[in-house]
Formats: sequence, structure tokens, C-alpha cells
Amino acid sequence: MGNITWSPEEKKIARKIFDKAYETEIEEIKNLLVNKIQDIKDGKDIWDINDFLTERRISIDKKYDYRYSQLIVVLGILLSEKYLTDNDLKGLSTDKIEKIKNVSKGF
Amino acid sequence: MGNITWSPEEKKIARKIFDKAYETEIEEIKNLLVNKIQDIKDGKDIWDINDFLTERRISIDKKYDYRYSQLIVVLGILLSEKYLTDNDLKGLSTDKIEKIKNVSKGF
Repeated sequence: MGNITWSPEEKKIARKIFDKAYETEIEEIKNLLVNKIQDIKDGKDIWDINDFLTERRISIDKKYDYRYSQLIVVLGILLSEKYLTDNDLKGLSTDKIEKIKNVSKGF
Repeated sequence: MGNITWSPEEKKIARKIFDKAYETEIEEIKNLLVNKIQDIKDGKDIWDINDFLTERRISIDKKYDYRYSQLIVVLGILLSEKYLTDNDLKGLSTDKIEKIKNVSKGF
């Protein structure tokens, strides 16, 4: 998918929804963290939180790759994970939206 | 210090104050966690918490070594770090208390 071209307007939209998805996911992690902390009973619960954060960090570092050659796949994953909605894709070309949706169905 | 012998009564005290120190430290980490979470502004703050937990975990895994051959040093470190007080050592032999205090001064 490296040959897809992005217009300046599409790049703007892509950046905006990419950042929005990231912030939504970070907010979700923060909320999970607040809940998990309320349930801490012993050291093991704290190390479970440590493991949870490490796993999410690895996943996020891998996922949020803002290269135009990767963007269709990245946005597809974010759509499948509900960090983006169909509505967020408005303004992208029809073929890009279709490709992003196709990717999202694979996840 | 491997040749120090521990009476059954001393072993009981050692186990109790060792566990008490661990629980105090875990409680401290939990409280720090609660404060840190209130200050989360972005993803970086969450990964900082992840790093904080990883560092404390490594430190704790290394420190809480309940072998009688290590116990004088371990209790000395816990005393120097204020997870134990002089009062907690009551009931141990005078020479053990002295050794533990000497170790604590080195940290």
C-alpha cells in the first residue's frame, strides 16, 4: 500500500484522527489504571499493573506508526479497535476509506 | 555473616519484621502510584509510571532475600531505608542488633 498518495487535506485529517485515537487509548489506559489501583491488595497486584502497562506500551509503540506507507493499515487497526469510528474517516478519498475498512475487518 | 545462628524466637521476629517492612514498602508504592496517577497528563506520564514500577520491582526482588545467611544485611538495608525502626529489632540478640545497625550505617 506504499503507492497511495495523500492530499494535503487528507494528511491533515489523518494526523488529526491518528492523534485522537492515541489520546483515546491513553485515556482508556489511565481509566483502567485508576480502577486497578483501587483493587490493590498486595505486591502481586502492583506487579500485575506493571505488566499491564508494559504490554500496552509495547502494543502502542508498535501500532502508532505514522508513515504514509503504513497509514491505511494503522487506521484500519484503530478502526477495528474502536479508537476510531467510521465518521472519523470522512474527508478521506472513497478508495482509502474502503481499504481502511477492509483492513479493520481482518483484525 | 553466614555463621550466625538464629534461635526459633529470633526467626519468628525476623520473619515478622521482614514481612512488615515489605508491606510498608508496598503500601508506600501504592500511595506514590495514587499520587502519580492524579498527575497524568499524557502518554509519557503513563510510561514514566511504568518505569517507576519496573525499577521498584527490580529493587524489591533483589532486596527481600529471606535467607538466614543474608538476613543481617537485608534487615540493615531495611533499617537504613526506614522500613524498619530500631524498635522492630527488639528480641534479637545484642550482637545481631549491633551488626544490623552497622550495616544500616553503610547504606
